[in-house]
Amino acid sequence: MPEIDAERLLGDLRALAAIGAYRTGVHRPTFSPDDMRARHWLLARLEEAGLDASIDGIGNVIGRTREAGPVLLLGSHVETQPHAGWLDGALGVIYGLEVARTLGRGIDVAAWADEEGHYASMPGSRSFIGALSEADIEACVNRDDGTPLRAALARAGLADRPRAQLEAERYLGYLEAHIEQGDELDTSGLRVGVVTSIVGIWQYRIRFEGMQNHAGTTRMAIRRDAGVALVRLAAAIDRRFPEIAGPRTVWTTGRIVLHPGAPSVVPGSAQMLFQIRDADPDRLASLEGELERLVAEADAGPCRVQLERLSASMPTLMDPRLQLALEQAAEHHAAGAHIRMPSGAGHDAQNLARRLPAAMLFIPSIGGISHHYDENTADPDIVLGCQVLATAAESILTEKSGGDTARNAQ
Amino acid sequence: MPEIDAERLLGDLRALAAIGAYRTGVHRPTFSPDDMRARHWLLARLEEAGLDASIDGIGNVIGRTREAGPVLLLGSHVETQPHAGWLDGALGVIYGLEVARTLGRGIDVAAWADEEGHYASMPGSRSFIGALSEADIEACVNRDDGTPLRAALARAGLADRPRAQLEAERYLGYLEAHIEQGDELDTSGLRVGVVTSIVGIWQYRIRFEGMQNHAGTTRMAIRRDAGVALVRLAAAIDRRFPEIAGPRTVWTTGRIVLHPGAPSVVPGSAQMLFQIRDADPDRLASLEGELERLVAEADAGPCRVQLERLSASMPTLMDPRLQLALEQAAEHHAAGAHIRMPSGAGHDAQNLARRLPAAMLFIPSIGGISHHYDENTADPDIVLGCQVLATAAESILTEKSGGDTARNAQ
Repeated sequence: MPEIDAERLLGDLRALAAIGAYRTGVHRPTFSPDDMRARHWLLARLEEAGLDASIDGIGNVIGRTREAGPVLLLGSHVETQPHAGWLDGALGVIYGLEVARTLGRGIDVAAWADEEGHYASMPGSRSFIGALSEADIEACVNRDDGTPLRAALARAGLADRPRAQLEAERYLGYLEAHIEQGDELDTSGLRVGVVTSIVGIWQYRIRFEGMQNHAGTTRMAIRRDAGVALVRLAAAIDRRFPEIAGPRTVWTTGRIVLHPGAPSVVPGSAQMLFQIRDADPDRLASLEGELERLVAEADAGPCRVQLERLSASMPTLMDPRLQLALEQAAEHHAAGAHIRMPSGAGHDAQNLARRLPAAMLFIPSIGGISHHYDENTADPDIVLGCQVLATAAESILTEKSGGDTARNAQ
Repeated sequence: MPEIDAERLLGDLRALAAIGAYRTGVHRPTFSPDDMRARHWLLARLEEAGLDASIDGIGNVIGRTREAGPVLLLGSHVETQPHAGWLDGALGVIYGLEVARTLGRGIDVAAWADEEGHYASMPGSRSFIGALSEADIEACVNRDDGTPLRAALARAGLADRPRAQLEAERYLGYLEAHIEQGDELDTSGLRVGVVTSIVGIWQYRIRFEGMQNHAGTTRMAIRRDAGVALVRLAAAIDRRFPEIAGPRTVWTTGRIVLHPGAPSVVPGSAQMLFQIRDADPDRLASLEGELERLVAEADAGPCRVQLERLSASMPTLMDPRLQLALEQAAEHHAAGAHIRMPSGAGHDAQNLARRLPAAMLFIPSIGGISHHYDENTADPDIVLGCQVLATAAESILTEKSGGDTARNAQ
């Protein structure tokens, strides 16, 4: 049974959190100076651990063991959301580093670039699996300031580097550890989650076109107020969705804009961004059907209402054999304190799962807080999660030496 | 009976509309280069008409007849909303100029600065009646780019100029003509409105405080979504207000902001700007009471909800004697095609009415469109309105010569 070094693990997590520290958390947007410092810091740690490490042309930091393989790939990401937490992403990367050091064999470690989507949806892991073209890269710009991804890569010193490509035969599978970011483990007193699937995320833009007019002289009876149309649809969703949603379905209106947005002007147009998440593709489809029905109802009113689907990722199932290895390790180190659960958030594992057996392990988020600098996990839970991952990784590697690979069990 | 010069009137309106022309309308924000060009253009027209004209330290353009008085004051404003119409404001100023030229006596003309509120609520007419202190001016900033009013005045070449002050004994009263900006005249085929009162406008900011969190991992049951709280309150207002509003009450949610406004983040805070208008102060008070009740109900939910009253102008009654003069002139030129009606919009007349008998005349807005470059009025209606105003002004001046002033009738 491998034994991780708890002090070394926590020390590395804290050292990484010091780069771009913000209040109790971290501010390290992708390819910012602090983010690049973090990538180079990680590169040095991977090399110290005896891995061949490099940063590729999309910003992925990858450390490879010198063995021929097949080996396991462990990873997550190191950039953060703005003014966010110290563990989101960093945890899975430093776990990978610590497991590589502990086992001393059979582990590659990766930090995928821009999982947090400052420029695109998980371009690092998509690049690695061969699902990001040069044209895709050309089209990516920073969501806040519009900087082209190409320019950001050049400024980060990564222009003209090759992009690492997955050799599928090198790997038994991919394991990613992450904080849960929800409160299920925390409120139930459980310490480890074994992820069964990653939810599908279906995103929509809904546009309302009415007639902009004077808020004093335009009688209520003749108004075509795009803001009122938006409020009525959002309220209808709020009433109707709980009746048809599943127990873990979530839906969110993250943005509302009224145009022109002046206190004395009846809004002439309006827009909302709406999102549905569920692990069941049939349920996603039926919720979308209900949304279409409500939009059609709204469109029968005084304003024109248009629904545009921006994206629709399918739910991703985690590999059953890798799940079992994680569960057995969790039972060994924390008997009865683990649970199988879906991930409500997207992760790089959903990309790796398109080419490799993949699985994820969750540890508790205190209060379920994430994407906020108050995000935290108790030290004993951080240590336990890494120990479970090390034990699972060793058992997968050992099983493979016995001639039965998780891969073949697919 | 005075006879205005229709060609001269329309020619001047079109010449003014050419300054800052935008599509079929005008873009002349207060103290922009085009707005200052318009003020200087007007100054020259007033001087050509034999008035002593000047631009004062707040940007008011005032032309005075050389008679001792008492005389009539006619006016409105020349700056516009962004990308707005050619008649809103300009009409009343050019009517004043044309009436001064037609009567050749007894008329002062004013273009009040910033009725459109780029920097403050009608600072020009407030300055003229002595209701704008130097401290008020210090506090004013541009609503779009934050430029201090002082800096804008300096850039416009108006720093250190004196601000013109009303000498109440000089005036029999104030008359302001304006497009209706609503559709009541247009849809009923009427051609002149005699304004009975200017509505009170009560404005509110409503703030919602919830808990920002991850839109994938935070279960619906534990969310404190500030955006959902806002939508529920806005929907409750939308259901409840029609049951208790008067026939001419209007209410508007002009702005909604969710924070942080990202598609995958449960909004942690939200804000809406809400406004009620009515000519009856008791009804305004009872609607505010209902709003307070709905906000308290919302505050009992998972988010904290706070109502802040930003302003509450009282309805302003127009002078009965001046109304009668306008009505008699309207009956003379357009028998049966005029009506008494309240103004749903605020106007400089509400400030002048605090110190002088004041009244307003409306002409139709095609389709009720205003604050939009499509705003328009048929030429014959534009000409008729000015003829009515000239006839009313002459009768008021004549009546006064007969020893009975509108002022004394107050």
